[in-house]
Amino acid sequence: MPRKSSTEPRIYHLHVENSRKRQALFHLTEPIYAAAVKRHRALAKKLKVTIGWDGDILDEALKTADFMINSSPPRERLRERAPHLQWIQTTGAGIDGLLPLDWLPADVALTNNSGAHGAKAEDYCTMALLMLQTRAPAMFANQRDGKWVPIFTMPIAGKTAVVIGFGDLGSAAGRAARKLGLKVIAVTRSGKAAKPANSACKVTRIESVLPKADFVVVTTPLTAGTRNLLNRARLDLLKPTAGLINIGRSPVVDYDALSDKLEKNELAGAVLDVHNPEPLPADSPMWTTRNVIVTPHISCDDPRYMDFLCDTWFANFARKLAGKPLTNQVDRALGY
Amino acid sequence: MPRKSSTEPRIYHLHVENSRKRQALFHLTEPIYAAAVKRHRALAKKLKVTIGWDGDILDEALKTADFMINSSPPRERLRERAPHLQWIQTTGAGIDGLLPLDWLPADVALTNNSGAHGAKAEDYCTMALLMLQTRAPAMFANQRDGKWVPIFTMPIAGKTAVVIGFGDLGSAAGRAARKLGLKVIAVTRSGKAAKPANSACKVTRIESVLPKADFVVVTTPLTAGTRNLLNRARLDLLKPTAGLINIGRSPVVDYDALSDKLEKNELAGAVLDVHNPEPLPADSPMWTTRNVIVTPHISCDDPRYMDFLCDTWFANFARKLAGKPLTNQVDRALGY
Repeated sequence: MPRKSSTEPRIYHLHVENSRKRQALFHLTEPIYAAAVKRHRALAKKLKVTIGWDGDILDEALKTADFMINSSPPRERLRERAPHLQWIQTTGAGIDGLLPLDWLPADVALTNNSGAHGAKAEDYCTMALLMLQTRAPAMFANQRDGKWVPIFTMPIAGKTAVVIGFGDLGSAAGRAARKLGLKVIAVTRSGKAAKPANSACKVTRIESVLPKADFVVVTTPLTAGTRNLLNRARLDLLKPTAGLINIGRSPVVDYDALSDKLEKNELAGAVLDVHNPEPLPADSPMWTTRNVIVTPHISCDDPRYMDFLCDTWFANFARKLAGKPLTNQVDRALGY
Repeated sequence: MPRKSSTEPRIYHLHVENSRKRQALFHLTEPIYAAAVKRHRALAKKLKVTIGWDGDILDEALKTADFMINSSPPRERLRERAPHLQWIQTTGAGIDGLLPLDWLPADVALTNNSGAHGAKAEDYCTMALLMLQTRAPAMFANQRDGKWVPIFTMPIAGKTAVVIGFGDLGSAAGRAARKLGLKVIAVTRSGKAAKPANSACKVTRIESVLPKADFVVVTTPLTAGTRNLLNRARLDLLKPTAGLINIGRSPVVDYDALSDKLEKNELAGAVLDVHNPEPLPADSPMWTTRNVIVTPHISCDDPRYMDFLCDTWFANFARKLAGKPLTNQVDRALGY
């Protein structure tokens, strides 16, 4: 795209790259972009937008693109192929699939879609906490088998939830737990308490809080530091009556150890929304592990997902034009 | 039991009758009574207590009993067999099994255990509303079949719940719904709004609110007036995206019509805790009805159930000694 002379307003090129391999929910289609333009008319006038599918126009678009929305950006010789590229927006919150970030030119910003997930994550965690407290995994197995086995459980208020990670999803889990009358302990890098947690603990001291948990909610991104954080030894610190919820990333928890413990009744239950690989294969033993509820990575996404992404992107674009720092920037050192 | 002379304190005879056919949760055993005595020492000193099982000492006990705790009181010639009986306490909230009350002498009070169920009912309704919103019934069926089928749904806030009956259980359902950000319409006899409902509607005008419901929560006792209240014609007024929760009594809803509509996708789902008969037989088609979650009548009871019953009973006993009216009295005309 030829650059305009300096007396005319600068037009930026935004290239949107979609992958048909991803769910339709995560496709930024022409109609979704057109709807976003109606909400951001003035900003949209400063853009030329191209929308590609599975790389069909990628190489051509890269030549002039200033910005890109792309969850699997091309990593090979990126600066050479995309000389004007300043900013890549991913469509998900987790960028573990892009690590390590050594392919990313130092002057290209990387932003994620953190913040899109709060309301759904809060609903999901509220439901999952109550399902664990009510022993719903056992009830659903009994329904499958046509067995009437009443299990009476106490109200959930007063129990303790340990929430691992306390960003967008962790705060949502914290709100869910507080709404149900639970005490919330946040496990974070800093160990500084953040609302709505009642208290916090450094991740380096996680062993001190795991024995207190009636529920553990895993919400962390996957990084070198969180991989296998809940390993077998740490899972062994949990009460046998405890339940585990994972809405973060599956490799943060040793699922083999988790399954062993569930089968032996050394843990009361688990509600798992994230798996490895996804889709979970039909022959995975996880589907039928004792006292597990498997959901297909739906905890944090709602049908308006890409509308929200567009709104977040336009708000960031306005910041960029105003010379302000972008929000939702990935920290290269931390990897999220 | 011989009456003491008037200079000595009056000792009352409380007979507790248990049925081994009922779940252990509903047995008022010696240890449970002994624990209650520790909480109510002064009052307990005014009592002689007998505990019978399946009628083993019933006839003898009736001769002197002033009070009885019994969910299936003897109906035949009750006044003749129990000349001193003043008050019967049932262990459940619903007394539909005792209707009509023509067997009950006019001067014998009948109280139920309403009020024991609020906290659990609130938890259950919170969970059930979110399960319907998240389309959990379909997800659990997919888990059973090892199928990964992501279904993305909106956050629940802003939806409308129509709660039928607004006593102890209905208020709990209302609190659950409000906590999740829902609008609550209570359907009651009087049609007067009661907190935490946003508005109310007379049961005679129920047709006007059913089309507004995203969720219907049935909490009414079973009486002549509520039997088949949600018949096929009224279920037909619901949106096809609506879900139904029943924690009251099953005959309030036409389950055959409900099942038909669920199988045809004319309703989105149902979470049913009450059934007919209970236990639900292993060959009941309800276990496998499309988009139904069956739970075994556990929504409103917790393991402290009989402790709570004892506390309620002692509080009422204190009222009786003070000449005050009993709480939780069943209205003979209304039948609940």
